[in-house]
Amino acid sequence: MSIIVQRIHDMKEIMKNAGIDFYLVPTADFHNSEYVNEYFKVRQFLSGFTGSNGTLVISQQEVGLWTDGRYFVQAEKELSGSGIVLYRMAEEGVPTIEEYLEQHVESGQTIGFDGRVVDAAFGRKLEEMLADKNVIFKYDKDLADALWEDRPDMPVSDIWVVPEEKCGKTVFQKLEEVRAVMKKERAAHLLLTKLDDIMWLYNIRANDIDCNPVALSYTFISEKEAVIFVQNKALTEATKCHFEKHGVLVKDYAEVVTFLEQCELNGKVMCACNDINYLLYKLVGKRGELLNHENPTSLMKAIKNEVELENIRKYYLLDSVVLTKFLFWMKKNVGKQSMDEYSVAMKLDQMRSEVEDFLDLSFPTISAYKENAAMMHYSATKEDKKEIEAEGLYLVDSGGQYIGATTDVTRTIALGDVTEDMKKHFSKVASGMLRLADAKFLYGCTGKNVDIIARQPLWECYIDYKCGTGHGIGYILNVHEGPQNIRWRYNSGMKEALLEEGMIVSDEPGVYIEGSHGIRTENILEIVKEEKNGDGQFMGFRHLTFVPIDLDVIDVKYMETSDVCKLNAYHELVYHKLEPYFEGEELEMLKEATRVV
Amino acid sequence: MSIIVQRIHDMKEIMKNAGIDFYLVPTADFHNSEYVNEYFKVRQFLSGFTGSNGTLVISQQEVGLWTDGRYFVQAEKELSGSGIVLYRMAEEGVPTIEEYLEQHVESGQTIGFDGRVVDAAFGRKLEEMLADKNVIFKYDKDLADALWEDRPDMPVSDIWVVPEEKCGKTVFQKLEEVRAVMKKERAAHLLLTKLDDIMWLYNIRANDIDCNPVALSYTFISEKEAVIFVQNKALTEATKCHFEKHGVLVKDYAEVVTFLEQCELNGKVMCACNDINYLLYKLVGKRGELLNHENPTSLMKAIKNEVELENIRKYYLLDSVVLTKFLFWMKKNVGKQSMDEYSVAMKLDQMRSEVEDFLDLSFPTISAYKENAAMMHYSATKEDKKEIEAEGLYLVDSGGQYIGATTDVTRTIALGDVTEDMKKHFSKVASGMLRLADAKFLYGCTGKNVDIIARQPLWECYIDYKCGTGHGIGYILNVHEGPQNIRWRYNSGMKEALLEEGMIVSDEPGVYIEGSHGIRTENILEIVKEEKNGDGQFMGFRHLTFVPIDLDVIDVKYMETSDVCKLNAYHELVYHKLEPYFEGEELEMLKEATRVV
Repeated sequence: MSIIVQRIHDMKEIMKNAGIDFYLVPTADFHNSEYVNEYFKVRQFLSGFTGSNGTLVISQQEVGLWTDGRYFVQAEKELSGSGIVLYRMAEEGVPTIEEYLEQHVESGQTIGFDGRVVDAAFGRKLEEMLADKNVIFKYDKDLADALWEDRPDMPVSDIWVVPEEKCGKTVFQKLEEVRAVMKKERAAHLLLTKLDDIMWLYNIRANDIDCNPVALSYTFISEKEAVIFVQNKALTEATKCHFEKHGVLVKDYAEVVTFLEQCELNGKVMCACNDINYLLYKLVGKRGELLNHENPTSLMKAIKNEVELENIRKYYLLDSVVLTKFLFWMKKNVGKQSMDEYSVAMKLDQMRSEVEDFLDLSFPTISAYKENAAMMHYSATKEDKKEIEAEGLYLVDSGGQYIGATTDVTRTIALGDVTEDMKKHFSKVASGMLRLADAKFLYGCTGKNVDIIARQPLWECYIDYKCGTGHGIGYILNVHEGPQNIRWRYNSGMKEALLEEGMIVSDEPGVYIEGSHGIRTENILEIVKEEKNGDGQFMGFRHLTFVPIDLDVIDVKYMETSDVCKLNAYHELVYHKLEPYFEGEELEMLKEATRVV
Repeated sequence: MSIIVQRIHDMKEIMKNAGIDFYLVPTADFHNSEYVNEYFKVRQFLSGFTGSNGTLVISQQEVGLWTDGRYFVQAEKELSGSGIVLYRMAEEGVPTIEEYLEQHVESGQTIGFDGRVVDAAFGRKLEEMLADKNVIFKYDKDLADALWEDRPDMPVSDIWVVPEEKCGKTVFQKLEEVRAVMKKERAAHLLLTKLDDIMWLYNIRANDIDCNPVALSYTFISEKEAVIFVQNKALTEATKCHFEKHGVLVKDYAEVVTFLEQCELNGKVMCACNDINYLLYKLVGKRGELLNHENPTSLMKAIKNEVELENIRKYYLLDSVVLTKFLFWMKKNVGKQSMDEYSVAMKLDQMRSEVEDFLDLSFPTISAYKENAAMMHYSATKEDKKEIEAEGLYLVDSGGQYIGATTDVTRTIALGDVTEDMKKHFSKVASGMLRLADAKFLYGCTGKNVDIIARQPLWECYIDYKCGTGHGIGYILNVHEGPQNIRWRYNSGMKEALLEEGMIVSDEPGVYIEGSHGIRTENILEIVKEEKNGDGQFMGFRHLTFVPIDLDVIDVKYMETSDVCKLNAYHELVYHKLEPYFEGEELEMLKEATRVV
């Protein structure tokens, strides 16, 4: 830990010399990506906290780290001894970063941050909240860069083109749809900086961020022109050809600033202040009128087209087959051969990599045994892992990138004896997951309307999980994708989007008992239209995930009769879907695992 | 109907002469009250539509009436033949009034309305939306006044003081709390125009609006002073004494305009733009800085104190006894003696009036038989009513004003044979009502989070009810009271308030099949704290209403096992609460009505 103490100490010195009183280090690349390449992990470098979400606020008086409920347990562990104070976001009485700064920053002080890794919306909010304090913002420098001697290089990987038959829409069609929104909103230009949106728009993918098949890029679209900024090294002949064919002008990634300083502007520039970074925002803002608007690509990307849905259904089934076989293997072999969290994750990753059209994992497999599963986003490593024995609960949250889907699934299984509490929690979680999947709702509902359906069995026992119930998922793209989500409350800046036909969304209630066990059962659901009548358009869900829910941890006495029916119906479906892929002993196990209870 | 056609014709002539192209007639008094005295029913006078919510928009080209889902069936009936077009608010493709005006008003045209009956928020919105059309607003005249020859007088009734032991808080305490909010928000003054808020603040009541124990009044509060504007005729010696004792200066109701034009302003004037009328808003806006802020009294009034809650529990029980006896009487006598919707309502009103501390009804009793019950707010009259026979469903929605509570309750009962569909709908409605009452939720939830719990059994059958699930209720005040409510979506301007301990809220799912039947089961619930632990403060509900749910219309095959358990548990509670008030044959009926199914 002393290395972290040293780094914080050094940062404070650098801040003194730079005349900066508060320095913010969020977790972002220049595109406000949720997951970032090693190059961008400044906050992790400075704090030692490895979670995917967290912001460090450094002042001479205090160093605070803000993170969300998924990471409370993990952050406490990782920050221990560093002197860094953990701020548990959204908990009662815990100030937001903005509130904290409002309380602590004094008149005339200076706030610093790297303007490329802070989104414009946050920067603007700070400006407003501190307007009467004459605060100075310094955002032109990454102060930590000087400290980070062995910093990795900026990532670069080949950009490849997704085969047209897997896209459902051509680049021409997508550009036309985007331009229609621009026209409607009377914007002359669109500055799009969100990586997965850019990938989706141009039907391209790359590998610049682990598990996220994206390339560092920007795009600037006008009525007639489209310019993409990518690293020259990322271009292959095929990619160049693809861009040329679709009339997309290619420029170097680093040129974006000069381009935006010099290009001709014929009217308003549309951009999403939640995504665009503060540096570009200030730059464009100086030159012309900005129109803060959600990226038009956001909703288009979230509503999957029929070609995408067909592929998603296919690869989710193949992915379900693999996970089911893996879980059967664990059940069969645990206690008989040596295994640990890391080794079994490697096995699952290996099995998945053999599936047709496999590209990558969609996120690092979470393989967590016993109390480690209480850490929602725990990550076992080769060095730091737990031996697995024939008892207790094991949780595995994993997914793959296939040329045809991005998958995500979680199951928790018993490896031997489990406690009564575990059975109770597991049964309640299964009930919640199945109830939401079976829920019907009117068009016009958002995730806020339906979230309680998954949570109700747990809330009835006065148990909550400190995260949303569900998130959207990309198509051969990021495993977390907006705008839809299923939550019971929304932090500021979060969008409460309508649930639309063709969206896919996760359904993942859980129970996390610190120091004891963690349970999560996650299916991915497709949103479908159901009956339309005088009362409106009714909507529902369909399962995309077909993996048994471990009956060894179910006790029907903790479930409503109707929940047991739902469980049996789901298992009948699972058997029907998986059976063609199973034979011999595995088929017997499948029959047993999907039996009526 | 020809009289309506004539009135609309006359209005168009008056508009021509006044140079007004579009004239708006909402349903409001000068205080944006939900229910208004006869004097203010200009929209009803002009359109013939008697519902409590509706806005008429008159132009030479078209006359449109906007109303909400509660009144679609009724409005269609009442507008038939008038030439007035019904705009069904919140239905797909139906423009809001603002959208309609944006589409139809041409540059330079004039929009007219009586500025005293249009709230400032709406006026401001129109100003904004039509900003680039150079529209002229004329809001100084009530154009319909000249047409309405036999218009009733402005109402006036004696103001009385609520005994201090029924209030829980003195006027001094309430003023102190209000001034604390003003101080926090840096407002020098508060202009409060909402009638029930003014009554609550000064612990007074009156009778200026049917069923709403309020007096026409305004109040203007500063750090040291409090001025109330009431009609001189409304003052009794006791009331004068009460105001004097609490240092409240009394001025005439009509003086408010002159006062606001001339009074000394020492800083910002806090007022709620959703409540204050446009005329006063423009007047005060010209003189000083307005601070648009929810009335501080709103939340204070909604969170009942322990004295209020004790009284509420007591009078809700007495009210439940009366309704149960009335329903037993109907069940016993229907088919044996002549009865109609109006006569039985009179009987119920009479029975209620005999309860201790009865003041008034809390709203006109809705007594609706068979298809009439499909009209959510149907009102039978002495002249227009339906004979009741020993078959089908009867719905009664009613409540009383007592010196200790405002009650509201709905039950639907079988008077003989009912169809399978009715049983199905009734059982689903009962399930929804009971599920919501039993729901647990984390502090931080709003009505939007929990609404789906009541709706889910119906949505599963692709049936919806076109209204909210629940509303707040006043204390010896208006039967509809904010800020809390239980809805799945919020129209613009509606507040999504946190559900707080001590609030009371209705739980009233329903099924409304036009031309056939209407079912509503409404209990009032108290919001209570439950367990608090590391996951947060859990909350729940407690029933305040104890009236059997008619088992003759229940078929358990349409309910989940857990719903049947909830029903039996509720009936056990009902029996336990009501039994001391019942004897002989009625006690036998109570036993039968609350039996285990």
